[in-house]
Amino acid sequence: MSTAYSDYKPLTFHDAARRFGDGGDTPRAYLERCLETIARREPIVKALTAINESGARAAADESTARWKAGRPHSSIDGMPIGIKDLLETRDMPTEMNCVAMKGNFPERDNAGVWALRQAGAVILAKTVTAELGGSHPGPTTNPFDPTRTPGGSSSGSAAAVGANMMPAAIGTQVGGSIIRPAAYCGNFALKPTQGGINRGERMATSMSTHGPHAGCLADMWQVAIEQAKRCGGDRGSLGLMGPDTLPAAIRPGRLMVLETEGWPDADPPAKEAFAKVLEQLEKAGVTLIRRKDHAFVEALEKAIEKGRAVCGGITGWENRWYQRGMLDASPDGLSERAKTALFKAEAMTVDEYRASLLARQQAQTVHAMTASLADAAITLSCPGPAPLWAGDVPGQPLAPRPTGDFVFNAPSSMLFAPVVTMPLMSVGGLPVGVQLMGQQHEDARMTGLARWVCETLKPVSVAA
Amino acid sequence: MSTAYSDYKPLTFHDAARRFGDGGDTPRAYLERCLETIARREPIVKALTAINESGARAAADESTARWKAGRPHSSIDGMPIGIKDLLETRDMPTEMNCVAMKGNFPERDNAGVWALRQAGAVILAKTVTAELGGSHPGPTTNPFDPTRTPGGSSSGSAAAVGANMMPAAIGTQVGGSIIRPAAYCGNFALKPTQGGINRGERMATSMSTHGPHAGCLADMWQVAIEQAKRCGGDRGSLGLMGPDTLPAAIRPGRLMVLETEGWPDADPPAKEAFAKVLEQLEKAGVTLIRRKDHAFVEALEKAIEKGRAVCGGITGWENRWYQRGMLDASPDGLSERAKTALFKAEAMTVDEYRASLLARQQAQTVHAMTASLADAAITLSCPGPAPLWAGDVPGQPLAPRPTGDFVFNAPSSMLFAPVVTMPLMSVGGLPVGVQLMGQQHEDARMTGLARWVCETLKPVSVAA
Repeated sequence: MSTAYSDYKPLTFHDAARRFGDGGDTPRAYLERCLETIARREPIVKALTAINESGARAAADESTARWKAGRPHSSIDGMPIGIKDLLETRDMPTEMNCVAMKGNFPERDNAGVWALRQAGAVILAKTVTAELGGSHPGPTTNPFDPTRTPGGSSSGSAAAVGANMMPAAIGTQVGGSIIRPAAYCGNFALKPTQGGINRGERMATSMSTHGPHAGCLADMWQVAIEQAKRCGGDRGSLGLMGPDTLPAAIRPGRLMVLETEGWPDADPPAKEAFAKVLEQLEKAGVTLIRRKDHAFVEALEKAIEKGRAVCGGITGWENRWYQRGMLDASPDGLSERAKTALFKAEAMTVDEYRASLLARQQAQTVHAMTASLADAAITLSCPGPAPLWAGDVPGQPLAPRPTGDFVFNAPSSMLFAPVVTMPLMSVGGLPVGVQLMGQQHEDARMTGLARWVCETLKPVSVAA
Repeated sequence: MSTAYSDYKPLTFHDAARRFGDGGDTPRAYLERCLETIARREPIVKALTAINESGARAAADESTARWKAGRPHSSIDGMPIGIKDLLETRDMPTEMNCVAMKGNFPERDNAGVWALRQAGAVILAKTVTAELGGSHPGPTTNPFDPTRTPGGSSSGSAAAVGANMMPAAIGTQVGGSIIRPAAYCGNFALKPTQGGINRGERMATSMSTHGPHAGCLADMWQVAIEQAKRCGGDRGSLGLMGPDTLPAAIRPGRLMVLETEGWPDADPPAKEAFAKVLEQLEKAGVTLIRRKDHAFVEALEKAIEKGRAVCGGITGWENRWYQRGMLDASPDGLSERAKTALFKAEAMTVDEYRASLLARQQAQTVHAMTASLADAAITLSCPGPAPLWAGDVPGQPLAPRPTGDFVFNAPSSMLFAPVVTMPLMSVGGLPVGVQLMGQQHEDARMTGLARWVCETLKPVSVAA
């Protein structure tokens, strides 16, 4: 029941909404189409942990009435949307794919979910997360090949959008949990500047962000901005700002091409496809700057070359008391993978944590110093197409990174930098994303640059 | 059963601990003396929500054995300590003086509490907080006059230390919740640099901090540094650093005298006492710089002159989703005072919040620019002695600020600046604190300056 990626036509909302006013389409009809797709695809894709059909239908009917009266709350009024199951929703449980959280149902909305409802969005489902936002996977499969991972930890949000179950879904990222699964599932996605969208009351670390997965750039942007207009950014942050609709296309003059720690081990066909993307950019008049071209690019590459370790150490340390509390309260409540990560964090000293913060701050300083060098950085969003994963084998050592490698995502996480991933490439018939990364608070600019890139370049397809 | 402040001799630990090695005293005997004081004082002072006598006795016995073996975990091994009831402890409930939280007992330690146990401290009791750390008071009375407030929201921590029930207790501050009650109850206290001590898993705002109340500077410092050595600062913060024992005294060359928003309405006798403190400083060779003396001091005064509104707006906004969730789940679970604050926050727009963040950031920039002007700022810790408060009168409008006015505390909160309050003055026989405020991360320096001030000045006593 999976769709070939070559046949994939993403589900979009902003264009359908144009017909809500005259009754040519309605939010309720839109929702019913989503529910039909869910009925068809969910048995294999397994992206959802809960669906609130009756609540969604009621919300869609209210939205239908608002559009009919010419008074929608926002451009996303009536949009069916999924919420990663790390985030609290008042009408569905929040279990974080974690045994210790089974039955957790606090009946309250996270700030971002509250903002979506205020904007008229239809909160349709909770989406599968890797356990506690880590690396232990849920049941979700890749919508374009059920033998492969959808990526993680925003597995269900990426897969639900890739399977056209809904036009957008909220993911969260600490290391690579929005951009990687989005790239594996053919989504557009925004990992905002750190603090860009209010994380609300969820336990959060110094690098965690919320961001939308969507079938198109317009829907992606509109979800993010409608949230930020209502609930702002994280505590102490100004939060995402920008226009109400998709920013105008911005033609880049210069782009930094980053290798990151991931380049040596990236799949050769993915590199080949990326080279064809870069070729098109150069033909369109964009100047590319690589590490060999400028000392500052080299300095940035050096500053992020241990990105995975820096992100892993910081996040492990910041989660350790919370996860220790869970484990003490529920000794069988965490997976072996989660426990291994916890024990590793508990072996850290505060000075090791401080050293990772220093490395992160140094990298941010170098990144800020590249601001005038290029309009953005460009690199792969993932090392290649989604890897195969059939599950852990009992008695065997745990497979590392069953949801894929976040090596291309750690840099933007540690830099607190906004990223837009675009489904510009296919490798062996599977999606592979390309990302644009900007300076902090350049979310709208990255979206405008991504728009130009998508409007200008032809998608690239190579054999595996 | 209250003690006259003129007879008050604070309970200290670091000096008692010198005799733990040779058995001249023991942590268990020290604890028993605390329990005796609690039995005598608690019926009137009402500082505690829970006491874990058996757990504390077991922990004190273990500490006694460690000292006897010459292997204490730290300088605060065996110190009985109270924890404000906003913070989770594995052995006592965490009810936050809030009806909606009644029975909450998550059986896990906050990061800071974990660190205290690692250092060998004896977690003796939970201390009363104003509801949810706000302004609706608990039952606690001032240890030097039971008709007066102990201040809030760290009411119980301040009163327990002022009543000699324990040598130190942990408070928290968002607007003025450590320094004001400490000043009303004759404590020393440290409000650390924002992020200085790991807040752990508690719901926290962008201005919330943890800090110790103590009977002397040495105990105050040692509690803070032993925590930070183990659990570091807040997520993303380096956290408090400095020596293991009380920093050496530092003689200030110049001090900025700040009026703050509070000066026009401060009690005249408190101003008179403060003038005598300043007179002693000048006699000791310290240069004082006031707003009339330097444009930067004037600029700082201007930048903090709406401190209460800025702090109130930011904190209200940041708590609104959390408190809305509580109220929806428990419609009778919040006091009228808390509901009034919530509704006010819910009427705010994101742009109003952003304007407050801008004001805060501007004030921090001005403050940073005064760094080379003076070694620290000095001002009152509270507008005068603790006010009378007999409780709300049914049918009457709610009294504003029943735990006193945080007008002298909002500046350091919005500046993310470290503050040490010293019980240098008495007004009408009641304690009134004086505070030293430094640049961010100058916690150890402020403690060293405070040491010099306390060693050099004579306490000042004036009539009411």
